[in-house]
Amino acid sequence: MLDVIAPLVVSNTTKIVLVSLDGLGGLPRPETGRSELETAQLPNLSQLATEAACGLIRHVAPGITPGSGPGHLGLFGYDPLRYQVGRGVLEALGIEFDLRAGDVAARGNFCTVDGTGRITDRRAGRIATDVCVRLTERLRRIRLPGVEVFVEPGKDYRFVLVLRGRARSGGGLSARLSETDPQVLGKPPLAVKALAPRAKATAALVSRFVAEARRLLADAAPANMVLLRGFDQLPKLPRFPEVFGLRSAAIAAYPMYRGLAKLVGMEVLKTGATFDDELATLRENWDTHDFFFVHYKDTDKAGEDGDFDAKVGALERLDRAIPDIRALGPDVLIISGDHATPSVLAGHGWQPVPLLVWSRYCGADAVAAFTERACAGGSLGVIPAQHLMPLVMANALRLIKFGA
Amino acid sequence: MLDVIAPLVVSNTTKIVLVSLDGLGGLPRPETGRSELETAQLPNLSQLATEAACGLIRHVAPGITPGSGPGHLGLFGYDPLRYQVGRGVLEALGIEFDLRAGDVAARGNFCTVDGTGRITDRRAGRIATDVCVRLTERLRRIRLPGVEVFVEPGKDYRFVLVLRGRARSGGGLSARLSETDPQVLGKPPLAVKALAPRAKATAALVSRFVAEARRLLADAAPANMVLLRGFDQLPKLPRFPEVFGLRSAAIAAYPMYRGLAKLVGMEVLKTGATFDDELATLRENWDTHDFFFVHYKDTDKAGEDGDFDAKVGALERLDRAIPDIRALGPDVLIISGDHATPSVLAGHGWQPVPLLVWSRYCGADAVAAFTERACAGGSLGVIPAQHLMPLVMANALRLIKFGA
Repeated sequence: MLDVIAPLVVSNTTKIVLVSLDGLGGLPRPETGRSELETAQLPNLSQLATEAACGLIRHVAPGITPGSGPGHLGLFGYDPLRYQVGRGVLEALGIEFDLRAGDVAARGNFCTVDGTGRITDRRAGRIATDVCVRLTERLRRIRLPGVEVFVEPGKDYRFVLVLRGRARSGGGLSARLSETDPQVLGKPPLAVKALAPRAKATAALVSRFVAEARRLLADAAPANMVLLRGFDQLPKLPRFPEVFGLRSAAIAAYPMYRGLAKLVGMEVLKTGATFDDELATLRENWDTHDFFFVHYKDTDKAGEDGDFDAKVGALERLDRAIPDIRALGPDVLIISGDHATPSVLAGHGWQPVPLLVWSRYCGADAVAAFTERACAGGSLGVIPAQHLMPLVMANALRLIKFGA
Repeated sequence: MLDVIAPLVVSNTTKIVLVSLDGLGGLPRPETGRSELETAQLPNLSQLATEAACGLIRHVAPGITPGSGPGHLGLFGYDPLRYQVGRGVLEALGIEFDLRAGDVAARGNFCTVDGTGRITDRRAGRIATDVCVRLTERLRRIRLPGVEVFVEPGKDYRFVLVLRGRARSGGGLSARLSETDPQVLGKPPLAVKALAPRAKATAALVSRFVAEARRLLADAAPANMVLLRGFDQLPKLPRFPEVFGLRSAAIAAYPMYRGLAKLVGMEVLKTGATFDDELATLRENWDTHDFFFVHYKDTDKAGEDGDFDAKVGALERLDRAIPDIRALGPDVLIISGDHATPSVLAGHGWQPVPLLVWSRYCGADAVAAFTERACAGGSLGVIPAQHLMPLVMANALRLIKFGA
């Protein structure tokens, strides 16, 4: 799709705002038969839906539950099946580590092994984050030849390992490595193996890191060993601002989403911790950018907690911000999300996500409410996420026609 | 899709009429909130929609505005992204030039250059068509070794250049050539370059044509030079009558649409300049063909002019012809279009286009009006244009089942 779009892009002065409600889609609460969106009072979104073209977004494929990475890459116009981002890279983005091209990142777990080296707990009793921080301090003593070693604490028992080659030239590092987590108890961690000849040197470095970690953690019960998964490097993605010819800004309070936006080359604007801060940032930067990705986290958080009422509340708070966004005068306003997080699932869901595209040229349909059920009858139909950006560009009058 | 369909085709005596309303889809007029289709009085189309299965057609992909080429190829069952037709070929079809396999066609502009050869006007002040005709007469004096040269005037400053190899054998001509239009003022026209080794000989011929043209036009102010774009050859398309097993007729008053139908192997019937002439041609040829592509231009013309009321009028005129078409007793009647031409855009649009498929076996849905909004809720959903022909063939009872 990007190859089809790129030659059609023309410049214009139109402004585009994409509001991504994380985990937007939901499911009916069994007691009422109404989803979070159907339960919430959303006068502004209803009005917008009445004026807009509506539909549903499918981020990966029917039945596939998207993670945050594929969910957002889809919204940004990238086919998530073609452009895959490994877990190690996502973890690094999630703690806003400044990952560079060529770095190899892995997700680490602190775990517990017995006297014979067999795993007795893959998460070391889900140790607290402050214990995790102390343990990563120990691992930071590890030195490996020819590379910088970064060990960054995450939440609970998680950390991120990054190896960065010192030499700009040379073969460099490779992430084609097998994981050390056997995924079962009673077995020792697996040896790291190179999955391609070019990864042999990196496999040797990681093996040495694991051996050193075992030694440094030996007396650190209960977390006395590490498991490493999801080795990966930054993917080579076409750059969003160049592909679409848009001065592009990302406004997100959470590091993971800033990281995903940075991955595609958007400018990540400094903002505060709340959605009000994000809106202030949007206002302040209105004149200097063409495209704004604005991220709203509360919907996902409530859904993940399985808290139906909290998700209803999060939707109603977002609804109250819509007039402020419209007051800025965007030419194209898109409301959608990166995946569903139905409260009844207390986690991400595979359900397609409501989509609303408003512009002067969006066309009308019969949809007058921003809900899963209403949007299913909208004029946009059920579309793959990567088809959204072309539609947005068309509504912004930034594409010429295909074929004479 | 064509590969799946072809082995399933069986013969039958059923008759199919596909009425393509050029630029059918529209957008609401801001003052009323109603589109052209929603404003027009269309009793016959409403009745047909009530009896038919409805939906929306998307010709290329969401957000992509189709040109007439991709728009019609989609209606004829061809994936427009797979089968692309270059601008040179479309221009040649548009003037009904008898383009043959192997010919290289380019779109030409007469332009203005200054004393140092730099472009000062890419369209030579949009010279009148009769000036264009006189200038092409000059260019027809050009002779090139081993090829026939055709220079055919188009509208205003446009012409078509066609090179035809004299030898049936040999490597032949290639259209893998760079364009000469630098797309900016103040620069001289670009040299033609071969984009593939096999195009070297053709590049040399075109360069010689350009040099001769410069000499012949030197004293012909303001149009004293040419620019060449969109070099292409006839694409190799599966032939529509053979793929679908249909004796296929195209009835179109405008040359471009006759050309597109010829491109896929339909028989182009001689007809007059009006839609009434087209309907007479339809009646006269009813017994000798199975499939009729009937083209209606007025909707697009009014839309391109940005004339909302004229488009409403064009729709109402078409509506009055529906009983005549039904009186012929088609087994399958399809009403749709090749792309939207919303009057508020005064040009082609990316919006999906209403679709109506009537047959004894089409199934009913709740749609009772032939409008963008109503069709969005139809039982056919939003489908790619190339999925229409299989659906039509099924309704004509001309396909056996897939898999035993």
